[in-house]
Amino acid sequence: MTTTTSADTASGAQGAVLLLDRARSVVDPQLRTTVESLPGSIRRIAKYHFGWEHADGSPAAGQAGKAIRPALVLAAARALGADPAPAVKAAAAVELAHNFTLLHDDIVDEDPTRRHRPTAWAVFGIPDALLAGDAMNALALRLLAEDPHPASTEASARLAACVIELCAGQQADCAFEQRGPHEVSLDEVVAMATAKTGALLGCACALGALYAGADEEAVAALDAFGREAGLAFQLIDDLIGIWGDPGRTGKPAGADLVAHKKSLPVVAALVSGTPAGEELAALYARPALDAEAVRAAADAVERAGGRDWAQNQAAERMARAVEQLSRAVPDLSAAEDLLALAEFVTRRSR
Amino acid sequence: MTTTTSADTASGAQGAVLLLDRARSVVDPQLRTTVESLPGSIRRIAKYHFGWEHADGSPAAGQAGKAIRPALVLAAARALGADPAPAVKAAAAVELAHNFTLLHDDIVDEDPTRRHRPTAWAVFGIPDALLAGDAMNALALRLLAEDPHPASTEASARLAACVIELCAGQQADCAFEQRGPHEVSLDEVVAMATAKTGALLGCACALGALYAGADEEAVAALDAFGREAGLAFQLIDDLIGIWGDPGRTGKPAGADLVAHKKSLPVVAALVSGTPAGEELAALYARPALDAEAVRAAADAVERAGGRDWAQNQAAERMARAVEQLSRAVPDLSAAEDLLALAEFVTRRSR
Repeated sequence: MTTTTSADTASGAQGAVLLLDRARSVVDPQLRTTVESLPGSIRRIAKYHFGWEHADGSPAAGQAGKAIRPALVLAAARALGADPAPAVKAAAAVELAHNFTLLHDDIVDEDPTRRHRPTAWAVFGIPDALLAGDAMNALALRLLAEDPHPASTEASARLAACVIELCAGQQADCAFEQRGPHEVSLDEVVAMATAKTGALLGCACALGALYAGADEEAVAALDAFGREAGLAFQLIDDLIGIWGDPGRTGKPAGADLVAHKKSLPVVAALVSGTPAGEELAALYARPALDAEAVRAAADAVERAGGRDWAQNQAAERMARAVEQLSRAVPDLSAAEDLLALAEFVTRRSR
Repeated sequence: MTTTTSADTASGAQGAVLLLDRARSVVDPQLRTTVESLPGSIRRIAKYHFGWEHADGSPAAGQAGKAIRPALVLAAARALGADPAPAVKAAAAVELAHNFTLLHDDIVDEDPTRRHRPTAWAVFGIPDALLAGDAMNALALRLLAEDPHPASTEASARLAACVIELCAGQQADCAFEQRGPHEVSLDEVVAMATAKTGALLGCACALGALYAGADEEAVAALDAFGREAGLAFQLIDDLIGIWGDPGRTGKPAGADLVAHKKSLPVVAALVSGTPAGEELAALYARPALDAEAVRAAADAVERAGGRDWAQNQAAERMARAVEQLSRAVPDLSAAEDLLALAEFVTRRSR
């Protein structure tokens, strides 16, 4: 295998883009080989979901997402002084697990599009998409169970535990949507975001550490790093869901408000005990919000302190992430790649 | 742990019932402990599905099914001369995997009842039931990945591969329902039944062999034994789906015909090239069948040779199962329990 995951490091946004490109270039072949082992009827759905094929089975040039999680696996191994090449299977397993959850989340959320294409369930029907997701869940764990690397068994146990946490996080997310504006606490929504977003980023970093032969404490530190960075990422993502992403195409401003999402800044505003928080609750009680109401809701979140809280929390979580990382990697210059990736996923609105 | 899985063997139907009771009594505590480790929102759905709790969370006395698969794991270990006690986690993992597929199959098939109770999705909604199934899939593999037994990693890889096969089998079953009466071949429906029913029975036996420290060839022989017995079981089950189960409450006669199921005897009749096969195809072309039409369809399956074929096939598959078993256990008296269980699952209509 030609290794493009050599020890050269990269920093800054361009560095992160390069790291993601490199991770994709080494993990993609492994991912494709692994998906190729699926039975035909399931394989075609997986290939469609990854953007490798059109619905009719003809090849597509699409990309399967940004490969942040595989890049974290490889960068974590490198930060601990190991050659990341033996961790490529673990990186592919994490990406498979991530994509199985996307497949099922799209069913659960009834989302019709992902990555600018119809979702797998919209194309193949719910039964086939559900079963393809089940198979991809098992495939991720099979890939680790069949990997002769000494860290693979512990990695498999960690990834399985993480999948369970992801499911609980997604379930909490759905449950919160059904509750009234004053029926979700900030602690609950932080715990939900940690489970839904932080857990897999933490798991990716922990797997990289395991494959680097790190001890238990270092593995736990890398897990905590990924979790904190993941929560920072979710906070920024939630801000973008309200105020949009300047300088990028992506979510339009107000999208989460239109959907009445109980995102982190929204809940922070709702529980603020301020008049602006009450205004927001009253707006969320309406079945639909027009453009003016969306602007009013965004303004209410801001006046209730939700925007500041989320921005401060994101900064604090990133600081905690770095603190955790330094427990395992005292000389942070060795962890430049990992830090560049964490910066990248949280930098978008800053 | 008090071990009720001692080496005493049992034969005949009563013996099999005793074996199932014993397996349940050792595997149930492990299963409950493992399910207890799930996050609360998922745990309550798993406990409801297993019949341990009512929908409101109050304790229920219900049983979680016959425990055939866990009993096969333990009996396979015993047939190979090993103490089955160390294989209890593997037995629980197989039962968890089986129950995750039931949870999802009920969603896919839109079945409103299972074991005389509303299905989990009917009680908790599709999103929560789907996510609970995902978590149980991961939990089964986590249980093996965390088991320090030397066979656990290979067992985990086998169970994951089996789950993928189960998904493909269920997908094929759904796909065949959509096809016309002449558009499913006998080979296809046999392959579907092998994947959907045989694979997990084979995996259960293979895991028992792995935990007994058996070599690759013996593990493969036990897997083949379970697969052949599983297919025999499916053939008998399909006969019951048409002619009912004399001497038992259970499926009413004709249930599979009312549902236009392309079961093994039905497809054997449809592809027979006989006038009776054409009569059956004409009846299946009707959107609904009244009682008289159901009787006519059953009669057509029989005249087209579907009933005889299925009965002969079941006998042949059981013979092949025993042949496979004898490759690993030349003195079959050591495998009495395993044979009693295989007899039990296929004896119902004989």
